[in-house]
Amino acid sequence: MNINEIVKAANKAKIKLMSLSSDKKNEALKAVAENIKKYEDKIYEANKKDLEYAKTLVEQGKITNATFGRLKLDENKMRDMIAGIYDVIKLEDPVNKLIFARQLDEDLILKKVSVPIGVLGIIFEARPDVIAQISSLAIKSGNAVILKGGSEANNTNAAIFEIINEALNNVDNFPKNAVNLVYSHEDIKKMLDMDGYIDLIIPRGSNKLVKFIQENTKIPVLGHASGICHIFIDETADFDMAQKICIDAKTQYPTACNAVETILIHKNFKYCEELKQTLIKAGIEVIENPEEYGIEYSDTILNTKIVENLNEAIEHINTFGSHHTDSIITNDENNAEIFMNNVDSAGVFKNTSTRFSDGFRYGFGAEVGISTNKTHARGPVGLDGLCIYKYKLIGTGQIVDVYAKGIKTFKHKDLK
Amino acid sequence: MNINEIVKAANKAKIKLMSLSSDKKNEALKAVAENIKKYEDKIYEANKKDLEYAKTLVEQGKITNATFGRLKLDENKMRDMIAGIYDVIKLEDPVNKLIFARQLDEDLILKKVSVPIGVLGIIFEARPDVIAQISSLAIKSGNAVILKGGSEANNTNAAIFEIINEALNNVDNFPKNAVNLVYSHEDIKKMLDMDGYIDLIIPRGSNKLVKFIQENTKIPVLGHASGICHIFIDETADFDMAQKICIDAKTQYPTACNAVETILIHKNFKYCEELKQTLIKAGIEVIENPEEYGIEYSDTILNTKIVENLNEAIEHINTFGSHHTDSIITNDENNAEIFMNNVDSAGVFKNTSTRFSDGFRYGFGAEVGISTNKTHARGPVGLDGLCIYKYKLIGTGQIVDVYAKGIKTFKHKDLK
Repeated sequence: MNINEIVKAANKAKIKLMSLSSDKKNEALKAVAENIKKYEDKIYEANKKDLEYAKTLVEQGKITNATFGRLKLDENKMRDMIAGIYDVIKLEDPVNKLIFARQLDEDLILKKVSVPIGVLGIIFEARPDVIAQISSLAIKSGNAVILKGGSEANNTNAAIFEIINEALNNVDNFPKNAVNLVYSHEDIKKMLDMDGYIDLIIPRGSNKLVKFIQENTKIPVLGHASGICHIFIDETADFDMAQKICIDAKTQYPTACNAVETILIHKNFKYCEELKQTLIKAGIEVIENPEEYGIEYSDTILNTKIVENLNEAIEHINTFGSHHTDSIITNDENNAEIFMNNVDSAGVFKNTSTRFSDGFRYGFGAEVGISTNKTHARGPVGLDGLCIYKYKLIGTGQIVDVYAKGIKTFKHKDLK
Repeated sequence: MNINEIVKAANKAKIKLMSLSSDKKNEALKAVAENIKKYEDKIYEANKKDLEYAKTLVEQGKITNATFGRLKLDENKMRDMIAGIYDVIKLEDPVNKLIFARQLDEDLILKKVSVPIGVLGIIFEARPDVIAQISSLAIKSGNAVILKGGSEANNTNAAIFEIINEALNNVDNFPKNAVNLVYSHEDIKKMLDMDGYIDLIIPRGSNKLVKFIQENTKIPVLGHASGICHIFIDETADFDMAQKICIDAKTQYPTACNAVETILIHKNFKYCEELKQTLIKAGIEVIENPEEYGIEYSDTILNTKIVENLNEAIEHINTFGSHHTDSIITNDENNAEIFMNNVDSAGVFKNTSTRFSDGFRYGFGAEVGISTNKTHARGPVGLDGLCIYKYKLIGTGQIVDVYAKGIKTFKHKDLK
């Protein structure tokens, strides 16, 4: 099948996926997990091929050592990949939840019910273990999915994909073409043109990838292009807490999108110099460069700025931040409140590390990504973010005309 | 101010709007309603000017009589406009609702709280009373709004806009530039380019307007380009109910987006001919034209198709419909269930008229429009659809490193 046929087949599958029972979805997920376990050697073998080629790319300077590391599947990743599927099985089914029920009039009942979105297009880079994670979230949420992985991982991706689909094909009455994989860069372009068939695109990867996708499709895109996170150290901040949190937010995983990039320090904070010295001792390059406020270092570099007051900090964050996650360190309840209400970001934190903004840490079980969108879903996106709702209206012959004429009036009585 | 300055001013206002109390917002709404009442003569005067010019446009065939009718403000519309604002005052504040609270660990509390989206761009056509309605929904939901009305209504729009802003300017501590009006077609194009400053565009108007907007912006667009709604008359449908509902769905307001366009009739439905005759007697032009399945007549014309079974009906609707509202007339519970689960539309109805899909009838108080999107908001969109959420994390110095190292583990205990 070519990309058009694949997407159209997925679009057909979505209708059947919408009304699958929780049991059927969990049965499918279990089959997938078991099949991956059964054929893990095949996956390692395919991964070995990818690694051999990737090694030459590293030598040629075409990919980084970090990318090579993400590409490599070891026992830990394999175990996590399989455990991740069992975690998704345990999560509550996000579909067919009754959001509200309302009696519009006698024998005229309106129900708002959660349903899958339809067809997801997920475009990701190097990490092949993402396929299993995303596929299981898609299955659990009743969505069809078109996956496009990084070409460096083509062999590993293909192996995992085939093992997943072999499992799904053996599950009675599980729709065909629910999980799909495409390979070429040309396929991405074609996917982006298929609005009307693909309902949501989720890119997971570099700023460049995400921006390219955002600029080249009419399909809604969920995710974030950059993670420019801040910590504001208020006048009353505890020195020990401030240093601990700054070091964690910068060094615990410097390339993460929720790592801090700029620290704003209140001009009356007494331990400004001590703080900088501690950060430097922790291996952080501390700079003060107004030209780099909008930059995501993805490295142990930290920009700093002295601010006059809370308001300047808030304005700075709303201007230069990426509306991802920003934290205030303070002992002033009132300032914390103002900060959290006025910083326009998906995550607004008080006295904690920005690194906490993550689906697993929030207790969502798994995430498809972190969104800086202002509509649909914001912050770490779990199963709920892969659903929308429909309105079911159950009547007994009612027509609008009698209400328009005032013969009857609506009751609008909430039942739930 | 030019359009760029207006949008940027609105973008500043949004931060202040986000944390306004319900009382302050209701005080502002009351002031607006009172000021409109106070200056209604000014509005009629401005409307008279627009009508005089519009009359020449009607004579030249440049606008229709229907458009002229929508442009005209009479006492009823004025009363409804003012009453509509008081209705919005009565609605529950959609902002700052606690969606959930979860203890991630000791003294580390995650709260998911509803917040305004930010800056809305609303582009609408002829009806000037829409300004008051949309402005009040924006104020209540804490959003800044840029309004662009139809040029035929420029005088009326300007008069209502000035009266609204005079009222808002006199409310203590109400942010300036919360409600904004722009006038030219050029301004629309510039608005559509201001992603990063405008968070959501809601077009209300013709298919042409909506499609133009959808195709020319990276800002999320909420709404529907067309309303191609269906009624499926199942084998077991009650004849009397079927005819009543079909007549209502087609004739009660033929230009409405939720009016029915195609009736699908099960081949074994016994009263097919009788039904067609009744529809014709009701003044409907009944046709059977496979070339016109995707057409919105916006008139008392009804396409019909005989289908083999429920499945063909569902496939027809999912293929040719606009995912707006579709209804089944049946006495078969099981078929109704299958229809409502498998038709992929914002509204799936059983034994009722498609005309019920409307914010007022659903009990939302008011609506900004009806969405056929698959993300964010679907169906009639009320105040909730103008909000998103943010995550507030309140800690006491926690860092991620100790959880990553397994020294501490998450509790993930739901508090609400």
